[in-house]
Parts: sequence; structure tokens; C-alpha cells
Amino acid sequence: MRIRRATPADNPAIWAILEPVFAAGETYAVDRDITAPDALNYWCGGTHQARVAEAEGMIVGTYYLCPNQGGGGAHVANAGFVTAEGAAGRGVARAMLAHALDCARGAGFRAMQFNFVISTNRRAIDIWLAYDFAVVGRLPKAFNHPTEGYVDALVMYRSL
Amino acid sequence: MRIRRATPADNPAIWAILEPVFAAGETYAVDRDITAPDALNYWCGGTHQARVAEAEGMIVGTYYLCPNQGGGGAHVANAGFVTAEGAAGRGVARAMLAHALDCARGAGFRAMQFNFVISTNRRAIDIWLAYDFAVVGRLPKAFNHPTEGYVDALVMYRSL
Repeated sequence: MRIRRATPADNPAIWAILEPVFAAGETYAVDRDITAPDALNYWCGGTHQARVAEAEGMIVGTYYLCPNQGGGGAHVANAGFVTAEGAAGRGVARAMLAHALDCARGAGFRAMQFNFVISTNRRAIDIWLAYDFAVVGRLPKAFNHPTEGYVDALVMYRSL
Repeated sequence: MRIRRATPADNPAIWAILEPVFAAGETYAVDRDITAPDALNYWCGGTHQARVAEAEGMIVGTYYLCPNQGGGGAHVANAGFVTAEGAAGRGVARAMLAHALDCARGAGFRAMQFNFVISTNRRAIDIWLAYDFAVVGRLPKAFNHPTEGYVDALVMYRSL
């Protein structure tokens, strides 16, 4: 697996990965009917550095890395990860997380924070916990899950 | 005191209130040398609804109200408050908070969340606690305070 910075040429592949995840509305607090330009701007725009994971010539995942806050909070990174449908169970998420942690350390960040981990997203939470993230906050009923209703969201954090 | 929606004509007064607070770098995770246009875009732009508090013909405070997340998280509001230098101790912050809670309820929000309350900002924390916000998260050393060094930030939350 090779992980590299995303370029505009990757936009169609990134959107193909994001679209079903955002449309499902179960793991990201993003409008389920978000358009491709808005989704790509959310994922790759502003302070977000987007990367893609390639395996056997296919893009199998994408992540972004950014400062979680400005000013006095800019030493804490934030990141988001999506694995392509059909590429689950192959360690793509773990590889991207390990890469993001290395990149964040290299860029001088001192910690990484996930602001809004949906409490029903056990697969992601188990990976974050395995990589030494701690649950430092619980937001009661902060997410309206399409099938589970109002569920908690977690704030997760680790030093680098 | 009268609280009303901000208009572009209020920009100079809003900037006059924000500038010393952002430049001090003690309570908001915003670049201390942020420019007026960037500060006004942060405060009034995007999904932020900005309001101003007037007393005796002077603007004595400003706040914004917005959804804290998109999609399944859009039922939780976020807000930010700044009182003008020289207007402290007159209940401006409390009046703006009460107004924001009413506006948020009226707009259908079910909760309000503050994502990044600097733990040294006791004056604000005491007000949020008095208005039934709970500390639901603690971000270790997430803020680099200009004189205190790395201090915790709090996540605070209340239902509406």
C-alpha cells in the first residue's frame, strides 16, 4: 500500500469513496445529500491536507490531516479517514492512521483529536483505542443516527 | 440592553470588540494577529448568525450562533461571546447567553455545545456552569496560553 498526497486528479476517486459514506449518514456529521464539490471542499479544502492510499493501482482509502484549532490550539491535529467500500478488512484504515500520526508528528503537532466519533461506530473506535486514543469527552445524544436515533458522540485524543 | 442581528454596518464595532480579545490570545483559539476581514469572516461568516448587544447607543458585546456540526449533528448549536472592554461586570455576557439559548431553542436546536473553553477562563466557565452547562470533556494541554503555557480546554454542553 502506498499513501501519497492527493491531487485534483484524484477528486473523482475520492468522491467515489466519500459519497456512499456521507449518503449513509452513519459515521460523519455531514449532510447526506452533500454535492461532490462541497464534499471535496470539506475533505480537501481550507487547511485540510488530503492523502490517498493506493493498492494494486486502485485508490482504497483517503484521509485528511489539519490543525484542529487556530491560534493557541494549532498544535493539536485533527484527521478524518474513509476506506473504500470493498476494501474493508485489509488494514487500510490502520495504515492510514499510522501514516497520519507520523505526518502529524513530522509537522510538529503535539497531539491528535477526533471531535465527533459517533458512539455506534465501533469499528473506528476500536482502531482509535488500539492506537492509544482515549475517550476524553462524551456528547450526549449529539448525533441523529438514521436508524439508531439520537446517540452519543465521543471526543478522542492522544498525545504524539 | 437590546440584542439584535448584526449588519455589515456593525463590522467596525464588532472588530473593535474582537481585536483586543483575539490579540490577547487567552480565550479564543484564533491567530493573535488575525486581520479584521478574517476575524469578521470567522465571527459572522458561513453558518454563523452574529448578533450585537447595545446599551445607551453603544455596542457592548457580540455573539454568534451556528450549528455545531452538519448532517446528523445539526441539532446541536454552538455559540461564541465577546463583551466589549469597559463593559465587563454589567451582565452583558449573561444577557447574550440567555438570548442565544432562547434563539437556539426557537430555531429548533436541542442542545448547545462549546467545543473549546480554555480552562483558565474562569469567568466564562462560571457563567456557563450557572446556566446549566456541564463539562463533558477535557482536552489535555490543548491550548497554548501566552502566559500559562499549555493548559487544558473543556468541552461544555447542555440540553435545551
